Amino acid sequence: MKIEGKEYRTIWFENKTVKIIDQTKLPHQFIIKDLKTAKDAISAIKTMEVRGAPLIGATAAYGLVLATLENNDQTFLKKVSEDLINSRPTAINLKWAVDRMMKKLSGVNSDEILKIALKEAKEICDEDIKFCENIGLNGLKIIEELYNKKKDTINILTHCNAGWLATINWGTATSPIYHAHKKGIPVHVWVDETRPRNQGANLTSYELNEEEIPNTIIADNTGGILMQRGEVDMCIVGTDRTLSTGDVANKIGTYLKALAAKDNNVPFYVALPSSTIDWNIKDFKEIPIEERNSEELSHVEGVDEKGSVIKVKIYPKKSKAMNLAFDVTPAKYVTGLITEKGVCEASEKGLKDLFK
Amino acid sequence: MKIEGKEYRTIWFENKTVKIIDQTKLPHQFIIKDLKTAKDAISAIKTMEVRGAPLIGATAAYGLVLATLENNDQTFLKKVSEDLINSRPTAINLKWAVDRMMKKLSGVNSDEILKIALKEAKEICDEDIKFCENIGLNGLKIIEELYNKKKDTINILTHCNAGWLATINWGTATSPIYHAHKKGIPVHVWVDETRPRNQGANLTSYELNEEEIPNTIIADNTGGILMQRGEVDMCIVGTDRTLSTGDVANKIGTYLKALAAKDNNVPFYVALPSSTIDWNIKDFKEIPIEERNSEELSHVEGVDEKGSVIKVKIYPKKSKAMNLAFDVTPAKYVTGLITEKGVCEASEKGLKDLFK
Repeated sequence: MKIEGKEYRTIWFENKTVKIIDQTKLPHQFIIKDLKTAKDAISAIKTMEVRGAPLIGATAAYGLVLATLENNDQTFLKKVSEDLINSRPTAINLKWAVDRMMKKLSGVNSDEILKIALKEAKEICDEDIKFCENIGLNGLKIIEELYNKKKDTINILTHCNAGWLATINWGTATSPIYHAHKKGIPVHVWVDETRPRNQGANLTSYELNEEEIPNTIIADNTGGILMQRGEVDMCIVGTDRTLSTGDVANKIGTYLKALAAKDNNVPFYVALPSSTIDWNIKDFKEIPIEERNSEELSHVEGVDEKGSVIKVKIYPKKSKAMNLAFDVTPAKYVTGLITEKGVCEASEKGLKDLFK
Repeated sequence: MKIEGKEYRTIWFENKTVKIIDQTKLPHQFIIKDLKTAKDAISAIKTMEVRGAPLIGATAAYGLVLATLENNDQTFLKKVSEDLINSRPTAINLKWAVDRMMKKLSGVNSDEILKIALKEAKEICDEDIKFCENIGLNGLKIIEELYNKKKDTINILTHCNAGWLATINWGTATSPIYHAHKKGIPVHVWVDETRPRNQGANLTSYELNEEEIPNTIIADNTGGILMQRGEVDMCIVGTDRTLSTGDVANKIGTYLKALAAKDNNVPFYVALPSSTIDWNIKDFKEIPIEERNSEELSHVEGVDEKGSVIKVKIYPKKSKAMNLAFDVTPAKYVTGLITEKGVCEASEKGLKDLFK
C-alpha cells in the first residue's frame, strides 16, 4: 500500500534490523522505527507500535530472528518465544507464528540458524500477503454481487483497523475494499472511530485516504442508526481469534455492530487468514480478553493549534475507567467468514470444509 | 444535587438574569453563566451550554421570561418562541415548554406579563423536579427488587447524561440510582463515555462522583461484553422524545446497548417525564435526527500537563467525519418506561393507560 505515493510493507528486515512503522504515532507522524533486539520486538507488540493479529504474528517471527542474532542458544530462544507469546493475550496468530518459527529453530545449533529464521519469517510475511490478496479476491465477489444489484456506491462499515497496517500488505477486512476500488466499483467506507485507541480514525481512515478511497469517520455509536436508515450495504471486520465454532473475538464494539446488522438485515462478514483460527477452544468465554491501561481512555493524543502533538486528560479528576480491548461476536450474527481459501459459513462445518 | 458539597439547581432566575451552569466547560471548570436576553437563551441551547431534554425545555421557558423583559410585544414573543423551537430539533420538551408558556402569554399586554412568565417558568421547573423525584421512586422499586434477589451491588449501565445536569434536579435515568443510594442499596454505575461529546464521562461520571456514587467510565464499545459476562444487572437511559408507540429517540448509541441488553436478557429501562412524550408522530423514521458539526468528533478538549484546558485535533488531516446526535430504539427492545406516574410497558397501551 502507498503512503504519500510510495509503496510500503508494514514490516521488513534490513541490515540486521527489523523496520516497522510506529503505529502509535499515526496519523500525526509517519515514523519508521528500528527493532534491534528481541526485547525491542516484544516491547513493540506490548506498546502497540505494531498491532493487528497478522502483523503481531509477523513481528513475533522477526523477534525470533533478532534473538538468533543476539544469542543462538536454545534456552535463550525458548525464553524469548515464551515472552513473545505472553506479550499480548488475545490474538492467536502470535502463538501460531512463534510455534511455527520454533519448529524450524528447535535443536538447530549451527551458524545456519539466522538464515533459517530469516527464511521462515519472510515466508510468514509473504504467505500473509498472499492470503490477504486471496481474501480480497474472495471478498470482492460479495461486493460485486451487491453492486450488480444496487448499481450505485456500495457503503461498507468497518470497525477498528483490519487494514494494510494490521497485516503486511492489503489488510484483511480492507482487502476486498481495495480490490473493489481497483476494479472500478464505487465504494465508500464508514469508519468506526474505535475508541479508546481510535484505530479506525488513526489507521483505517488514514490508509484509505492514502489509497484515495472515499471514507467517513463516525463515532462508534453511529453504526446502528445508519443501518436503520439503509445507509450500510455490508459490514466487514477483522478478527484476532476465530473459534472453530465460528465465534469471533475482535476489537471491542464489534459485537454491537453485528447485533445492529442482524436487526437490520445487513450482511456482516469477518475477514481472516487461517492463521487466526483457534481450533482448540470451543467456548468463547475461555478466550482471554485483554484489559489494558485505563489511561488509554482518560487521555487522548492530538495536534494542538501550533501543530505539536500533545496528550490531554479528558475525564473528570475523580473518575476511574475500565479498558477491555476485545469482545466476542457469536457465530449466529456472522453472515460469513472470508478466508484465503474462500467464503464459508461461520460454523464448525463451514471452517472444516475449507480447512481440514 | 451537590457540587463540592453545595446544593445547586441547574437553572435559576436572579436579578433579571437567568443563571445556568455552562456544561460545555465541565468537568474541567465549574462556571455559572448569566443569560440576559432571549438570544442568550437560544445560543445556550444551540451551543449545548445547557442540554438534556428537560433542561432544554426549562431554558426555553426562561428564554421567554427574558423576552418579556426585553419587549413584551406579542410579535416579538412569537418570533422568540419560533426561534427557540428551532434551536434544536430532536428533543420534544422544547416545543412542549414553549407552547405551554405561549398559552399563558398570548394576548397578555399588561405589565403583568413578566410576572405571569416567571410564574409559569418556575412551575415548569418545580414540576420537573417533582416528576424526576417520582421517576426516582418508581425506578427505585425495580432496583430494590433486583437487590432483594442478588443481595450484592447492583451494576447499572447508563448512556449519555440523563442526570441531574439534564434536568433541574435529580435527573431522569439517574434519579432511581440516587434514590437507591440514599436508601443504602449498594449500586455501581457503568458510565458509557458517549462520544463524541462525552456527556457520560464529562457530566454523568462527574455528577455521580460529586454524590459519591461508585462509577466506572467505559468506552461506548464496552457495554456488549460486560452484558455477555453478566456484569450489568440493568440499563437505564433517558430520552429526548418518546413516541406513543413506545419507540425512544435518545443519544446516539442507545439503540446498540438496547440490542445487547436484549441479547443477554438484561432489563433495559427508559426513564422520562411525560413532557418527553410525542403523541403525534407514529413512525420513528419521521423523528428529526440532528446532525451536528463534525468538529465535535475530530477535535477533543482536555487538560494538558500544566492544567490548561486546550483543544486538540485527533483525526488524520485528509479525513472527514459525520456526526449524528441521536438514534431510535424500537419499543420491542425496551423492558419498560419509568415515568412520574409509574412504570409501564413501552407501547401505546402502556402509555395511554398511564396518561390518557
